[in-house]
Amino acid sequence: MNSKSSEESKANYRKREVKMLLKELGMKIYSEMDKGVFPEINLPSRSVRNIVYDEKIKQYVLGKAFVKRSTHNIKHIRPFTQLIWLAYFVNKLVEQGKTSTLRDVFYSAQAYNIEFVDQAESDDIITDLEALLSKAREDFNVYPEERSAIFGDLTIEYTIPGYEGKRLNLASHPDGYLIGPSLSTADFVDTSAEMVLAVEKGGLFTRFVEEKVHNRYKALIIDTAGQPPRSTRYMLRRLNQELGLPVYILTDGDVYGEHIAMVIISGSAGAAHLRELTVPSGKWIGVWGSDIKKYKLPSDPLTEIDIKRIYELKEDPRYKGGIWQRELDFFLKIKKKSELEAFAKYGLTAITDKYLPEKLEIAKSL
Amino acid sequence: MNSKSSEESKANYRKREVKMLLKELGMKIYSEMDKGVFPEINLPSRSVRNIVYDEKIKQYVLGKAFVKRSTHNIKHIRPFTQLIWLAYFVNKLVEQGKTSTLRDVFYSAQAYNIEFVDQAESDDIITDLEALLSKAREDFNVYPEERSAIFGDLTIEYTIPGYEGKRLNLASHPDGYLIGPSLSTADFVDTSAEMVLAVEKGGLFTRFVEEKVHNRYKALIIDTAGQPPRSTRYMLRRLNQELGLPVYILTDGDVYGEHIAMVIISGSAGAAHLRELTVPSGKWIGVWGSDIKKYKLPSDPLTEIDIKRIYELKEDPRYKGGIWQRELDFFLKIKKKSELEAFAKYGLTAITDKYLPEKLEIAKSL
Repeated sequence: MNSKSSEESKANYRKREVKMLLKELGMKIYSEMDKGVFPEINLPSRSVRNIVYDEKIKQYVLGKAFVKRSTHNIKHIRPFTQLIWLAYFVNKLVEQGKTSTLRDVFYSAQAYNIEFVDQAESDDIITDLEALLSKAREDFNVYPEERSAIFGDLTIEYTIPGYEGKRLNLASHPDGYLIGPSLSTADFVDTSAEMVLAVEKGGLFTRFVEEKVHNRYKALIIDTAGQPPRSTRYMLRRLNQELGLPVYILTDGDVYGEHIAMVIISGSAGAAHLRELTVPSGKWIGVWGSDIKKYKLPSDPLTEIDIKRIYELKEDPRYKGGIWQRELDFFLKIKKKSELEAFAKYGLTAITDKYLPEKLEIAKSL
Repeated sequence: MNSKSSEESKANYRKREVKMLLKELGMKIYSEMDKGVFPEINLPSRSVRNIVYDEKIKQYVLGKAFVKRSTHNIKHIRPFTQLIWLAYFVNKLVEQGKTSTLRDVFYSAQAYNIEFVDQAESDDIITDLEALLSKAREDFNVYPEERSAIFGDLTIEYTIPGYEGKRLNLASHPDGYLIGPSLSTADFVDTSAEMVLAVEKGGLFTRFVEEKVHNRYKALIIDTAGQPPRSTRYMLRRLNQELGLPVYILTDGDVYGEHIAMVIISGSAGAAHLRELTVPSGKWIGVWGSDIKKYKLPSDPLTEIDIKRIYELKEDPRYKGGIWQRELDFFLKIKKKSELEAFAKYGLTAITDKYLPEKLEIAKSL
């Protein structure tokens, strides 16, 4: 059904695009210097005042404000130099097909006598480059250290050096495949899957594989390992956009679980400069506050911290209306929370045999 | 070189053994009841007074004290019943080839009206069963939720239901394979590896794969993801014992990194009742305190908490003598710590091109 086209692979296209953008940046600086002009850069402003909620796409986005970094201004020279060094550094990474972590970037700068006071400062410059190029840092080979996992019938084709053209089917290792640089940049060749199920916990991921959820529901299963690392959100988006698969999210029945689902779907304010990390059509199918009552789940009382967090999110524009506000209110009303494992009270397979199909049915009407 | 023998697979043997032990336990209780005798059980005591350090094997072990749990004593009936229920529950797991987490066990008990106040209580009973059978809980299919990863030329053969006889080579996915129930119970079929390199961090794991450390040093690479989950320590032991591979451990250059290496090698006081989770011949090859000076690594000052932890470990019998005490003293002397990523100051490949071969050479004389 979904088979690889003969056109240029999407992964290769992304790589070419980021190289071109980096080259353009370099050309611009170079030609300004060549003309005897002080080089400058205009960056979308990431200040809180410029982060606005877009009702239509239901995401935080950046407003119209820009900041100028000019080498004419002595105060700008430090962040300007850091940014240009970073562009040079990641261009090398992309050319050589090497990857790096945020932490590596911080230390690597020292080799070039580029000073960052701490990693917070280098992270910030990396985000500047993301905003400038409208590309996620994963596109220029800077990956988070955390990894989550995937399992199911999806054949991929690697594009990283040494593995180009090699294929792997992601159903061959039942403990799951880490989602790192090579999987994030692989092309999707073929799948029989009809949906993606993202679950919050490794234990449940293993349960789903054991109970053959991938066959019974024709699903790719992803363990987000809590709030998913960015490369996993990126992967979820690719599965949704490139393969047209609906994404269903299953979390613990508490405010943190609800927020994990929200970030997968709508992104975070901190990444308002990026569109590549969201799955706007994704659905949070549980565990809802109302499920705790409906399924008579073992539960724990809400703590004061839980309650405070619920009130915070009730004010968040992403949580206005729909199940989002309704379930926050339900948690408050029953003052309880439940974990995914709580279904084990009704047998280890209750969650896959009864709860999951019922919630997938309900999801159709969400 | 290391190829699968035609005898019964080690994984199958372990499974058969644990089933037999559970059956024996059931038979004992049954026959006592049949004779009209109050059933009782003798457990190795896990009290602090019975945890002793064994100089010869350089591990904490349990002493000779036992505790009796008799159904004749009304105070014993609760933990006795819990233990017998657990034996019943895990016997079903093993028979059906299903796995479970510590958390699942806690909730599953509720289906049988077996009461545990909290998960701490059910975890404790699980440890009792480990001590009683001298088996790790992984042997009766109770796994930690955390997963770490492996990469390299090792062909495994699965033994879990639905995958029996299927083989996979662990060099085929460069982001790494999760070490979960199916990998932990797989048989090792063939490898060209001559060592195991366990690294503390995912970023470095990816670096090692990119720099082809697995080929250059004929190594299997394991990401312990900090203090490794028990299933990973179990895996390290199996690679060491069954394939005869030396295990080298690379951590951050601080007291926590040193302790990660120590726990892989010598185990923990909390698991003094088990031998299956240690690699007595393992070597901690770095980052040592003395390496921070020798390699002029970027470093951070020790915090008060770091210093307190160093003094604690200096009193621990596992840290008497050798590099263990020496490096604790060195950290104290220079009052500095360094991360693995600090090598990036000298280029992303300095750690694989220069540091690793030098330390592997030194390891030969450790």
